[in-house]
Amino acid sequence: MTDDERYMQLALHEAMKANEIGEIPIGCVIVSRGQIVGRGHNLTESLQDVTAHAEIQAITAAASTLGGKYLTDCTLYVTMEPCVMCAGAIGWAQIRRLVYGAADTKKGYRVYAPQALHPKCQVVSGVMEDECKELVQTFFKIRR
Amino acid sequence: MTDDERYMQLALHEAMKANEIGEIPIGCVIVSRGQIVGRGHNLTESLQDVTAHAEIQAITAAASTLGGKYLTDCTLYVTMEPCVMCAGAIGWAQIRRLVYGAADTKKGYRVYAPQALHPKCQVVSGVMEDECKELVQTFFKIRR
Repeated sequence: MTDDERYMQLALHEAMKANEIGEIPIGCVIVSRGQIVGRGHNLTESLQDVTAHAEIQAITAAASTLGGKYLTDCTLYVTMEPCVMCAGAIGWAQIRRLVYGAADTKKGYRVYAPQALHPKCQVVSGVMEDECKELVQTFFKIRR
Repeated sequence: MTDDERYMQLALHEAMKANEIGEIPIGCVIVSRGQIVGRGHNLTESLQDVTAHAEIQAITAAASTLGGKYLTDCTLYVTMEPCVMCAGAIGWAQIRRLVYGAADTKKGYRVYAPQALHPKCQVVSGVMEDECKELVQTFFKIRR
């Protein structure tokens, strides 16, 4: 198992926490120099707040842990391709590495805001893609 | 003075609160059926959190006031054109009317994510543009 897969598995654990409380199961961890500095999972229903995406929670947590708002040294792992809002936040935080699991062809940033990330941000996609995708697909299959 | 100007003036008051504490002076109010349901001003430095933009604070506040995450009936007034992140949040909240003061040609959503808002969102720009722009320009003139 690669480091990216190991951290994505932790992001999947976050996603499962969302799943358990009836939230669309998306999870995120932020890693700085081998340490988890922020975690988050989708809480939009629980908080009744559209801004409560996994990435936003994790970015706020990481900035608090590190004591600064720029997360230049960090890698953000998220189970699903970030939306426009989250890509904008990842850009503002100057995160230089983004790793996501499943693509989001409907609401993903690549369609709506392909330039939202920092120009030096390296993007890796498809890490544990099947597990990330299946979790969300199962969630919707049960509910819709 | 039109209703839009009156509410933009309240957004400007929010921006001045940011100014007083050394934050880039951007302010926001959200109005539902003639009532202010959310306010916010930029707090990115105070909170050391890139997600603490005026619009994000105001959206969270409005959802809390109204008891629901969709702000379909609301107009969001903000002194500066929203960034990608905030436009994404405005889109998720399904806000149907956005009024902003000054354009942001560098970081505004119209360049980076022109489709981020709800497709039915009406956009009005340039309301009290000079006052909104001057506040930010003066902020940077003093500091840089």
